[in-house]
Amino acid sequence: MEPLAKGRVCSVERTLDILGDRWIFLILREAYFKVGYYDQFIANLGIATNILSNRLKALVDNGIMAREKDPHDARRIRYSLTQKGLDLYPIILALMKWGDRWLSGSEGPPLTLIHKGCGQKLSPITCCAYCKAEVTARDVEPRHN
Amino acid sequence: MEPLAKGRVCSVERTLDILGDRWIFLILREAYFKVGYYDQFIANLGIATNILSNRLKALVDNGIMAREKDPHDARRIRYSLTQKGLDLYPIILALMKWGDRWLSGSEGPPLTLIHKGCGQKLSPITCCAYCKAEVTARDVEPRHN
Repeated sequence: MEPLAKGRVCSVERTLDILGDRWIFLILREAYFKVGYYDQFIANLGIATNILSNRLKALVDNGIMAREKDPHDARRIRYSLTQKGLDLYPIILALMKWGDRWLSGSEGPPLTLIHKGCGQKLSPITCCAYCKAEVTARDVEPRHN
Repeated sequence: MEPLAKGRVCSVERTLDILGDRWIFLILREAYFKVGYYDQFIANLGIATNILSNRLKALVDNGIMAREKDPHDARRIRYSLTQKGLDLYPIILALMKWGDRWLSGSEGPPLTLIHKGCGQKLSPITCCAYCKAEVTARDVEPRHN
């Protein structure tokens, strides 16, 4: 993408610079399901090896995933999420929630998440950390720094 | 992208099928800033007219934005977010929060959002709608339906 001519400087764009590819999101989704081996990513995503290698390298270079030797088999490499990668989870949850609500059709959502803390089905909401109220687009006003 | 060979059916992927383009996110970001006119999108994003027309059409076709005549000037068209579009806001907030935390550098976040409900700077967190606790990647277990 061309640089913005007169764009707003914004963390949304900076984040998209790093995540701006569907494969990245799908690799991350698998990683949250505890997938960590190259061959598992291939099997679960049907992704071409060159694309997978390239995207894993980008994730490691950006500090989102770490590359380490399997403790049980030093010839195997395992990819795992760093804290920076774990912190992307709210983005995945927000993508999933919207798809559940607007794209599921009569069959309902294809996957349920259980919140281990309370044992209930997870319905994620976005809240204000200060007052804990749910936040919608209408509740927010921008202030440029 | 090729269809997944053995993929998990998942709302993340369905959502990315619709949003899978950085321009879409940036147009949405502008729309949350109340930008609604074609020439405003061009000026703010430096986007090519053919790309903008194509993405606005996709957003309207998917029910995310609505195309209406400007009440003050019937020759002008205004684009506005539908409820389906407003519901994408948590995705934008999650992208922004991650960028604020991990990509801001010493200057700090470029934009502050104010939560109108309590008047404080908005720090968005993802919570469980049932127990209201903050949810991280480690607190969730998948269950396939």
